[in-house]
Amino acid sequence: MTRRAIIAGAGALPGLVLEAGPALIVRLKGIAVEVDGPGIDARYERFGQLFDDLHSAGITELCLAGAVTRASLDPALMDAVTLALVPRIEAAQRKGDDALLREVIAILEDQGFTIRAAHELRPDLVAPDGAIVGTAAPDGDAARARAVLAALGPLDVGQAAVAAKGQMLGIETLQGTDAMLRFVAQTQPGSGGILVKRAKPTQDLRVDMPAIGPDTVRLAAEAGLSGIEVQAGHVLLLDPDAVRAACVSHGISLWAVA
Amino acid sequence: MTRRAIIAGAGALPGLVLEAGPALIVRLKGIAVEVDGPGIDARYERFGQLFDDLHSAGITELCLAGAVTRASLDPALMDAVTLALVPRIEAAQRKGDDALLREVIAILEDQGFTIRAAHELRPDLVAPDGAIVGTAAPDGDAARARAVLAALGPLDVGQAAVAAKGQMLGIETLQGTDAMLRFVAQTQPGSGGILVKRAKPTQDLRVDMPAIGPDTVRLAAEAGLSGIEVQAGHVLLLDPDAVRAACVSHGISLWAVA
Repeated sequence: MTRRAIIAGAGALPGLVLEAGPALIVRLKGIAVEVDGPGIDARYERFGQLFDDLHSAGITELCLAGAVTRASLDPALMDAVTLALVPRIEAAQRKGDDALLREVIAILEDQGFTIRAAHELRPDLVAPDGAIVGTAAPDGDAARARAVLAALGPLDVGQAAVAAKGQMLGIETLQGTDAMLRFVAQTQPGSGGILVKRAKPTQDLRVDMPAIGPDTVRLAAEAGLSGIEVQAGHVLLLDPDAVRAACVSHGISLWAVA
Repeated sequence: MTRRAIIAGAGALPGLVLEAGPALIVRLKGIAVEVDGPGIDARYERFGQLFDDLHSAGITELCLAGAVTRASLDPALMDAVTLALVPRIEAAQRKGDDALLREVIAILEDQGFTIRAAHELRPDLVAPDGAIVGTAAPDGDAARARAVLAALGPLDVGQAAVAAKGQMLGIETLQGTDAMLRFVAQTQPGSGGILVKRAKPTQDLRVDMPAIGPDTVRLAAEAGLSGIEVQAGHVLLLDPDAVRAACVSHGISLWAVA
């Protein structure tokens, strides 16, 4: 029998995945989990405990959903299983976030769990191709931002960028899309530019798919942008109705291209 | 006989170039020129007038020095020479800032002026190879930022970037190095990261050489950075003594690599 747990990150996604079917919620210490429901409290230092709890509950499949951030681990709190994993985790970490996440998945699979992608369980959240709200802008600024993301992707940098009138106004770094949009709002308000958000080629979409939500749309509007382009099939709308409503109310066009 | 004019942008460079020898100062409307001295008032819409004034003053060589920003031009104010140049300028503008600047140089050369680079007149301002203040940091973060700039350069984006602990914290866009450093200060203070500033391969160093000044050092310190790496031979220190003093007083290392 299949029994599912959601390793919950921040944001709306864990709740949306829970709507796809019953699941235990794994709440990692330090992450502000928004979804209610029966679950397991865990911490990064106690992987051994977490594996035991998951196996005892009969869990066979895991979905990692929502935003997680790197945490500094306290060696004094680590159980034996975690201590044994530290070299693998540290080696992966040196290669970047994507490598780290890939290693965590490998560790979970070694424990016999099947990894299910959030977008497999909720395919209705994935951005479809074409116009979603309003009409796609002429290709100039979107193409420029796309070219910048394509150049950076192999370096595991850049999920999003903003261009206006042929100029780059923002390129996402560690701080994320929202921080970049706030920077554009502060420094180049009213540009009428375009936000482009796409997956990096290095990104493992099973556990780390780019997403936009109504807050992204609101921040884009506050930055004076006129449109948002996402990568069709590779970006989640959290959730589609709320994102569409935010676009309409803020006068922002939204479309997807391959 | 050689007679020189400096087309002055913002910042310290026009004053430093003036120290290299007598020159008229061309003050373009909308640019906050810091240097005093005899000169010519000009505006982007009246190139014909500017050429006449330069020729009447016997000017044979021009140095474009300091930061200039794009201005929106008022067609109603344009003289006949400027109107005739608009198609050339607009075509170049569509290709980006570097192309625009290159076209402006070509236009000035068509008028018989010799273009002298600021770093030709003040070679002492150019960053030398190796350690300048303190010691170069181990290569990790500097190399990461350098790789990002190398990927973006062909797209005419990115003169500077900040990396810390293997992560990108800032990538320069239209708003410039200072705005990027303020963003890092706001969003990731105390990272201990490295600022890397280099010329883009597309950049015409005769008229648009990257520069750092004491304010860059101060902003880097406010962002909690530990070091600044510049491209040897391709970045100006404005001026070297003030930059070195700022590094010492803020505890920032400064070095240059090819």
